[in-house]
Amino acid sequence: MLRGVFKAPASSANIGPGYDIFSLALARPYLRLELSVGDGSGIHVENTGKYGAQLPQDPCKHAGAVAASNLLKHLGLEKRVELIFEANIPPRKGLGASGAEAAAAVYGLSTLLGLKFTKAELVKFAASAEPGGHADNVSASLLGGFVILLQNNGGPEAVRITPPEDLGMIVVVPDFEKESTAAARKALPEMLEVRRHVAVASRTAVAAAALALSDLDLFLKAVYLDPFVEVARATAGVYGPWLDGEKLVEEKQRLFKLYHVAEVISGAGPSRLLLYKKSENRGDYGGRPVDEALQEVLEGVEAGGGRVLEVFETVADLYGCTPI
Amino acid sequence: MLRGVFKAPASSANIGPGYDIFSLALARPYLRLELSVGDGSGIHVENTGKYGAQLPQDPCKHAGAVAASNLLKHLGLEKRVELIFEANIPPRKGLGASGAEAAAAVYGLSTLLGLKFTKAELVKFAASAEPGGHADNVSASLLGGFVILLQNNGGPEAVRITPPEDLGMIVVVPDFEKESTAAARKALPEMLEVRRHVAVASRTAVAAAALALSDLDLFLKAVYLDPFVEVARATAGVYGPWLDGEKLVEEKQRLFKLYHVAEVISGAGPSRLLLYKKSENRGDYGGRPVDEALQEVLEGVEAGGGRVLEVFETVADLYGCTPI
Repeated sequence: MLRGVFKAPASSANIGPGYDIFSLALARPYLRLELSVGDGSGIHVENTGKYGAQLPQDPCKHAGAVAASNLLKHLGLEKRVELIFEANIPPRKGLGASGAEAAAAVYGLSTLLGLKFTKAELVKFAASAEPGGHADNVSASLLGGFVILLQNNGGPEAVRITPPEDLGMIVVVPDFEKESTAAARKALPEMLEVRRHVAVASRTAVAAAALALSDLDLFLKAVYLDPFVEVARATAGVYGPWLDGEKLVEEKQRLFKLYHVAEVISGAGPSRLLLYKKSENRGDYGGRPVDEALQEVLEGVEAGGGRVLEVFETVADLYGCTPI
Repeated sequence: MLRGVFKAPASSANIGPGYDIFSLALARPYLRLELSVGDGSGIHVENTGKYGAQLPQDPCKHAGAVAASNLLKHLGLEKRVELIFEANIPPRKGLGASGAEAAAAVYGLSTLLGLKFTKAELVKFAASAEPGGHADNVSASLLGGFVILLQNNGGPEAVRITPPEDLGMIVVVPDFEKESTAAARKALPEMLEVRRHVAVASRTAVAAAALALSDLDLFLKAVYLDPFVEVARATAGVYGPWLDGEKLVEEKQRLFKLYHVAEVISGAGPSRLLLYKKSENRGDYGGRPVDEALQEVLEGVEAGGGRVLEVFETVADLYGCTPI
């Protein structure tokens, strides 16, 4: 029986205009996985931790178990696998909880079995357990850092950038149960105008270049608005009944203008990510601007009849999956 | 009477997936402008050089004169302006000839009159003379380098990146008279599918990051295909009657696979740009791969009944408009 303990960071997909393109690994919260592999067959799942009770024990429905099973099938291996997850990432809140499960499972298996896969090669196995096979969250959880997915013919390829140390983040998790990520996808129209496409693509290009150049001012300016997906989903009520597209854009504009904070929806929501420059928020002379921005966001959720489940400050995770 | 001589580089817009977003300044060919400003009124244009006879003398129809006039109007100034252009950029071939005229005119005027505009601030005046007010070519001609336009609420903002020295370019100018850039715009559908949008935007994001990171392999891979604009325009015959979308994609795939050359249409065409790594094309041991790629492109144009007007090797221009 081989045993190991691994971690996989939470992640935030989309980051404003980068729908199905960008994702960012978060140093906190992260998922802990105790993995045992031995002779025999069958995959067994146990969920512990803060959100363990909300996760399926059924290995056919658990992203980590499905990903592990797909990897073993691909290899033609029969093994007994035990997965004990410590679930610290709020599930179904747009923070890549299932992506982290899938990433941790394939990374752990690959490590224990001494497989020769790189993390980039593991992306497709982890993605196979995600709705629609989407690779954004699993790529960030596996590789860490900021990931750009190149949608190529042979499947998506993850390009990893190390974000500048000065990038600060606060995550706000509203206590709103979205229908599902699939339902959030259906809230989008099938087509968009060329003009809107150009507006979005120009923001993704500038955001990617800015991060590569460690130009956080330019990065925040490029990502703080998303003229397509966020607006359509907000209007469809995906992020909660209290947030329509107009309200969201107005809040974003205000937070950027007043506090230099880029507010983006994390994945399909409802969590929000407040991105800011740590160097501008040291609080040496009174309150930090980002705390004032946070206060406005919290008041906005409550004024709309919502409740906030969690708020946490975090930074980019640079390592992705690792043994611990 | 103030006098000065200035240059503005040709430019290549779009660069594969970056429709209305990317543009690249070319060190050769460039436009030369002799500019005189004095008391009086009226704008006078003279066109000399290889392509001078093809350009309008009417100041209401000449991009350089229109841009100069718009700048003076904005300033509330009345001046006599004489513009003598040496036109070395083939006009109406997708190489930013009119953009270079407009850029040179506003840059020259601003320099001679001692105005306090930055080049970035001059973009909007130069763009005012372009069809649809498009800022891509004029931004590259003014600023030099590789430009990403951020489509923001207050108008486009040019983000400039210095491309790696190893980026080589060959320009092929087919002798095909496209109807107009406006007609090329009409060849596009008004909407595109979300999936196609994601494919294009992911390529622009990766291309931008790759260039910022000086990763030319990744850059070439990201730009060599454009799943939207180039295919639609080729199919509509915008690049010449001999090139449909399928043929274009097939040629691109082949050149990339065999020679590691990214073939992109320059602007609205019909010129093509072959992008490659100079370090892979030193020709120390026999022919350069890019020359074989070029041969295939030339044969393709001729096999379709087309003729090639010019072929030139160039590199990125890093300075944009300058006095000479």
